[in-house]
Amino acid sequence: MAQLNFNIEDIRGTLSENKDGWHKQLTYISWNNRPPKFDLRSWDPDYQAMTKGITLTKDELIELRNILDKMDFDKY
Amino acid sequence: MAQLNFNIEDIRGTLSENKDGWHKQLTYISWNNRPPKFDLRSWDPDYQAMTKGITLTKDELIELRNILDKMDFDKY
Repeated sequence: MAQLNFNIEDIRGTLSENKDGWHKQLTYISWNNRPPKFDLRSWDPDYQAMTKGITLTKDELIELRNILDKMDFDKY
Repeated sequence: MAQLNFNIEDIRGTLSENKDGWHKQLTYISWNNRPPKFDLRSWDPDYQAMTKGITLTKDELIELRNILDKMDFDKY
């Protein structure tokens, strides 16, 4: 994994955890000293390794909440 | 972009759209004929190219909704 400079400012929640202790989390994180953004990806127990993921702005996350609040999960 | 076989079964919503027409979306998608999963990533207008992203199970997405519903976005 390329050496990345990051600072997890806030762990908002864990979506799941697998048998190896990796957990998929919503975090508020600053990458390479840039302004923090929301972020969804999986991390190893020591936050030394990570999977691909996605960064989200506050507005995108609010829109995602609105989408999820209207969803009928029984359809899936 | 490696040739991937995917079928977007459902577009649940658009979180944002950039000036080039790429849109960050929550979709329900089958990758390489596997059972469909929820997916968060950006797509070009014709769904020919995509960014890195993240797949989510139904339970993970429900947990994410619960996390977002409890969040105070004014803090950010």
